[in-house]
Amino acid sequence: MLEAESHAIIEIPMKARVFVSMKTTVLDPQGQTICSALHGLGYPAIADVRQGKFFDIVIGEGVTREQARKDVETIAHEVLANPVIEEYTVEFLE
Amino acid sequence: MLEAESHAIIEIPMKARVFVSMKTTVLDPQGQTICSALHGLGYPAIADVRQGKFFDIVIGEGVTREQARKDVETIAHEVLANPVIEEYTVEFLE
Repeated sequence: MLEAESHAIIEIPMKARVFVSMKTTVLDPQGQTICSALHGLGYPAIADVRQGKFFDIVIGEGVTREQARKDVETIAHEVLANPVIEEYTVEFLE
Repeated sequence: MLEAESHAIIEIPMKARVFVSMKTTVLDPQGQTICSALHGLGYPAIADVRQGKFFDIVIGEGVTREQARKDVETIAHEVLANPVIEEYTVEFLE
């Protein structure tokens, strides 16, 4: 991204997707339940299932791209994910 | 994908990610709650939030790629999503 772009106020809504999932070291009982249910339903090839959440965030007009990126990072870390047991990734769809 | 490839038994585990979210015509109260909470927390620029689930599925050895793709599609449609109110997309990470 160009420096000039990042300081311009955004005029079309910007979209971000935040993925939140259990850390790989943390047990995921929901995923395990789905996995064994699938074995019972006739899908023995399924080796593992892990469940996670995602949040599609639309950032309105009136902020800079830079500010929007910073805000979504903070929101992901402080509101959407519990950093003790969860990890998150942020993806911007521009 | 080549035809020959799709019939070969997979030797390394194949990964798929299934995204499930409310249809856009269906109200998403969880997302709306998060959105208004974010306004209260000092992020007025957030215009909309919609929440969804994702499932990371690992398909073990012993099936063909073609069969694995077919299985994941069926699982997404019949087990993971409720087609009445939810929509899903499947992504293969190969």
